[in-house]
Amino acid sequence: MGYPAGIGPEVISKALASPAIRRLANFLIIGNESLFKRACRKNKKNIVYARIEDESQINFSKGNILFFDVSEKCKSKFSQGKISGVLGGESIHYIEKAVKLIESGKADILITAPIDKHAAGLSGFKYKGHTEFLAHLTNAKKYAMMLTSDWLKVFLATTHVPVKDISKSLSREGISDKLVLADLHLRRYFKTRKPLIAVCGLNPHAGDNGLIGDEERKIILPAIKDARRKGVNAKGPLAADGVFFDLMKGAYDAVLCMYHDQGLVALKMIGRNSSVNITLGLPFIRTSPGHGTALDIAGKGIANPDSMKQAIKTAIDMYLNY
Amino acid sequence: MGYPAGIGPEVISKALASPAIRRLANFLIIGNESLFKRACRKNKKNIVYARIEDESQINFSKGNILFFDVSEKCKSKFSQGKISGVLGGESIHYIEKAVKLIESGKADILITAPIDKHAAGLSGFKYKGHTEFLAHLTNAKKYAMMLTSDWLKVFLATTHVPVKDISKSLSREGISDKLVLADLHLRRYFKTRKPLIAVCGLNPHAGDNGLIGDEERKIILPAIKDARRKGVNAKGPLAADGVFFDLMKGAYDAVLCMYHDQGLVALKMIGRNSSVNITLGLPFIRTSPGHGTALDIAGKGIANPDSMKQAIKTAIDMYLNY
Repeated sequence: MGYPAGIGPEVISKALASPAIRRLANFLIIGNESLFKRACRKNKKNIVYARIEDESQINFSKGNILFFDVSEKCKSKFSQGKISGVLGGESIHYIEKAVKLIESGKADILITAPIDKHAAGLSGFKYKGHTEFLAHLTNAKKYAMMLTSDWLKVFLATTHVPVKDISKSLSREGISDKLVLADLHLRRYFKTRKPLIAVCGLNPHAGDNGLIGDEERKIILPAIKDARRKGVNAKGPLAADGVFFDLMKGAYDAVLCMYHDQGLVALKMIGRNSSVNITLGLPFIRTSPGHGTALDIAGKGIANPDSMKQAIKTAIDMYLNY
Repeated sequence: MGYPAGIGPEVISKALASPAIRRLANFLIIGNESLFKRACRKNKKNIVYARIEDESQINFSKGNILFFDVSEKCKSKFSQGKISGVLGGESIHYIEKAVKLIESGKADILITAPIDKHAAGLSGFKYKGHTEFLAHLTNAKKYAMMLTSDWLKVFLATTHVPVKDISKSLSREGISDKLVLADLHLRRYFKTRKPLIAVCGLNPHAGDNGLIGDEERKIILPAIKDARRKGVNAKGPLAADGVFFDLMKGAYDAVLCMYHDQGLVALKMIGRNSSVNITLGLPFIRTSPGHGTALDIAGKGIANPDSMKQAIKTAIDMYLNY
């Protein structure tokens, strides 16, 4: 359910109100029932679900939506759109619970609503985000963030890193590992037979032959060569401002970007309301909508559920493709 | 003419072959006549022009295209698409000559074809590019690079800077000066009555309230406040991956990006073949096509002249608007 005072409950209730979405799978919502109910009331969505108190009650014979309330059940009144350490801690607890249920075979796929890093931080959460926390919980050593939007597929070499630290966060091994993961996931989950992956340079004009930075020559090119030796069809380093135009024309199956905004500016231009975040390298499929908690509009009933719907559809497509 | 062994001569000849372009102004080409002729022959463009030997001969009574050959006239044979220090030096000489002619009132506008920084470097050229060199020649202290593509207008706070050095290249004064320049140019040359300029943050999610870098709080926000005090309607710092989507919906008149790829990925996705580079802050109007010398396709006759045509049209529109 993500941070329950953000737009998570709202986009979940709106997505599950769609019969086309409900028909796709059995759903187990893990979260705070009273805040979920509030979102359903506000948005006039009557979601029929069975409440369970314990994982032994997971049983879809009576309907395909269950609600597992793992909230703190304290008496505080919570306000939509506000930062709360209690709710921040809860949102992390939902994730831990979900991973345990998947690991014990009670569920197959994880779809997450956005968490709030400030609220989670108040409860002691120290990870950069879902991706890093899930890698920790599952002991995944090689993982990567992938984003999709319509036909666009973007992998990121670094994620939530300040721009001044990107260069030192890049490594030959890290980039080559991400290319291998990307290639595997494109084949396995997206049925791309011989993926061709474009690799962006870090610097303007991909360094312009060393005139504007040397990471292309020292790190990125050797990493591409390593990945090619492992059978990955990767091309680069290429100037980022040309890559997306060529990608739009179908020249590549996906692109590996060196940092967040290099990939996300293009991705969100193409489809701000359909972007999906996918974690590669976990022992299960995990997707989430490509937006945040949007505290400024939480509780107003105006959040767009399209990204959440797309996250659900993408996860199920990936599951069925494998 | 730009670097004469690149695609400069080709895109100039193709652009001037268009009657719609020729009708717009009187043109004075400064460059290497033998390489220009070669491009015209290769592309079967018969451009009628008068050759002049000296600036005293600048006179458009007999036709509206003049060619001022300021080449080295050495006997070497030059190959298209190859790096040559002689031609690199020549290309810089064209720019110096053009600026002198404008300063002496012989011409009004400067439109440049791309130079090759490696070739120019062999002749001792030490500037990052046209923008910095023109600022030097005209003694401009406050200048900025603007890029347009169709309806999209992007200003850059830093240009050809390695990503690891962007943070230290940003300053409160520099950003605020660029906002003031951008506002002035939008009003003066683009007839935008009350420009609203979006300002991107540097880091992912515009720093996420300080969780991912602090340049937003320490540098960018104070710069925006300074600019607002000077009457500039600037909004930010905003997460770059949301700005362009809103810009596409018409929410802003222009955007100030903190670095090259933050702006150019979006710009070139919208219109790779119509992007135009504009230098703000010079004593005259200067535009150029948004592409480079494209040595890989030089001399092949396949270069697209649309950006050059657009650079000519944009410069003349700006001139007429002022």
